[in-house]
Amino acid sequence: MIETTGIAVHRPGGAPERWRFERRDPLPGDVVVRVTHCGVCATDLHALRGTDPSAFPLVAGHEMTGVVDAVGTAVTDLAPGDRVAVGNIVGSCGRCAACRAGRENGCADYPTLTYGGPDPHLGGTTRGGFSSHIVVDRHFVHALPDGLDPAAAAPLLCAGVTTFAPLRRFGAGPGTTVGVVGIGGLGHLAVKYATALGARVVAFTTSAAKRDAALALGADDVVLTRDPDAMAAAFRTVDLLLDTTGVALDLAPYLRTLTVDGTYVLVGIPPEPLTVDPLSLVVGEKRIAGTGSGGVPVTREMLDFSAEHGIVADVEVVGPDRFTEALDRLARGDVRFRFVVDVTGL
Amino acid sequence: MIETTGIAVHRPGGAPERWRFERRDPLPGDVVVRVTHCGVCATDLHALRGTDPSAFPLVAGHEMTGVVDAVGTAVTDLAPGDRVAVGNIVGSCGRCAACRAGRENGCADYPTLTYGGPDPHLGGTTRGGFSSHIVVDRHFVHALPDGLDPAAAAPLLCAGVTTFAPLRRFGAGPGTTVGVVGIGGLGHLAVKYATALGARVVAFTTSAAKRDAALALGADDVVLTRDPDAMAAAFRTVDLLLDTTGVALDLAPYLRTLTVDGTYVLVGIPPEPLTVDPLSLVVGEKRIAGTGSGGVPVTREMLDFSAEHGIVADVEVVGPDRFTEALDRLARGDVRFRFVVDVTGL
Repeated sequence: MIETTGIAVHRPGGAPERWRFERRDPLPGDVVVRVTHCGVCATDLHALRGTDPSAFPLVAGHEMTGVVDAVGTAVTDLAPGDRVAVGNIVGSCGRCAACRAGRENGCADYPTLTYGGPDPHLGGTTRGGFSSHIVVDRHFVHALPDGLDPAAAAPLLCAGVTTFAPLRRFGAGPGTTVGVVGIGGLGHLAVKYATALGARVVAFTTSAAKRDAALALGADDVVLTRDPDAMAAAFRTVDLLLDTTGVALDLAPYLRTLTVDGTYVLVGIPPEPLTVDPLSLVVGEKRIAGTGSGGVPVTREMLDFSAEHGIVADVEVVGPDRFTEALDRLARGDVRFRFVVDVTGL
Repeated sequence: MIETTGIAVHRPGGAPERWRFERRDPLPGDVVVRVTHCGVCATDLHALRGTDPSAFPLVAGHEMTGVVDAVGTAVTDLAPGDRVAVGNIVGSCGRCAACRAGRENGCADYPTLTYGGPDPHLGGTTRGGFSSHIVVDRHFVHALPDGLDPAAAAPLLCAGVTTFAPLRRFGAGPGTTVGVVGIGGLGHLAVKYATALGARVVAFTTSAAKRDAALALGADDVVLTRDPDAMAAAFRTVDLLLDTTGVALDLAPYLRTLTVDGTYVLVGIPPEPLTVDPLSLVVGEKRIAGTGSGGVPVTREMLDFSAEHGIVADVEVVGPDRFTEALDRLARGDVRFRFVVDVTGL
């Protein structure tokens, strides 16, 4: 077994603390990764501060970079020392239509989540990237392209692919206008990718303080969403809207900004149900789409695209001892734009 | 002015009665249509039995066939005696992106509805197809192809295009599976079109009594939606789902029947808001799309396709004297599958 040190929360309301546990010995198709960096996603915050005792002990973290430590006997295309990255999925059935189409995130059997899901090998629950090592099926280990800083690239494995995948799926590019709602961990990467893809980019934010930041990230225009006149002026100007807020917005004002056939993509996952006025979809024949991370092909495309265009997250790197502080600041939105934990000190 | 006899309701709760009114004299680009048949849509029922006094007097009807009676001086491609059809839109700005793309139903200025909308020519409110004559801009008058019975073809102008347009927009055809929820006025045409387009068709209905009817219409399979086992067995089998029920269903069980990337199309318009669990969209990356009738190009494509494939509505034809009876029976779902009023007796 692989001796591992992680950052665990042991019970609802508990503080994160160092915890020794064991990973499986590598199966023939596995890669043992020595993790160096792991981004802190809003999902981590919700999970670590959840109230269901059965979810604990919990080692979170699902956007990580690191170095190959060892490989299983069947792995021939990665070797110790190679730079790699792992995202929020570490397994899928491999047989369903979604898996065969490279949409492993939509696996009909539900993919094996990097943490908090059933562990098909050891039983119990999978444990994530806030840890010294992780053992992952080769299919879900991605080479980290040269030139990508491992700290700043870690968030690409969730926030990056979660925004890049719908931009590609819905055809963002020259001649299209992309709106990005919420300029945070997800949103700042959405602005960077949409800009690099050649789209016109409009940032939608509640915060006048984020106007300059959005423009600096590449946005062509900024709409303050609390200004009804500004929202009305955006009528029918946006082809594709990525809502990265993770809260259940009143969709109607946003749907009005979409062109005919335009798509509103739910990139964050609100904890509450959405309420949708049918006419707001029918008038102009709009769409609402769900998205969630991405399959293996689009993840690798995202990494290559990021290297080619020099795109990484804007990060604040902290050591394990500042993990609680990072969670607290993330909870109040005090981060530009992503915390990354350097776990080499574990 | 064109002396016209219509079927009007004059006040909330009022009975339909014959009413004489005047249409405009044809402008250069207009066509005067002598209406012969007009289908009864659920929208008509809701409008005629509405409670807002400002909506009355009301002449409903927005799916009609007839014969050209006269044309304006600039109309050279239609002549008196030609068979024609008019749907739910009789005007649009012609300049916005939607209009230029032939998506006049999505006109940014809002299209001129065939009835109940502001009348840009005479002022007041437009008056619909339950009438002896109608005067319409040539752009919104469609030649009725040979071989289509004018009574059975009348519902194609709303129910037909409303179902055909999303099937074309979302790629229904060989190799795809289309689900049709609700086998009524819209749904029975959706089954016919999807079958003719080459898709595998699954009818979803609450009513065991409609199983045989759905199969006779061309459905390959029928799922009884009140049978949880049958719904569960349909997991991930449908690429495109047309919800023709017009009520705000619990979407989650239907979204589960969709394949990855599958689309749920809201074809009817529920009067209540939809409540959507975000995860039901995110897991499998599903979409919800609005649709509403269709623009001019797809309307004409639908008519040609209907003639080529011998598709018309299953209708029960009634005279103006049975209009109230038709509304009453439509209100309780007692029609297979569409009432059409023969207005030649007005």
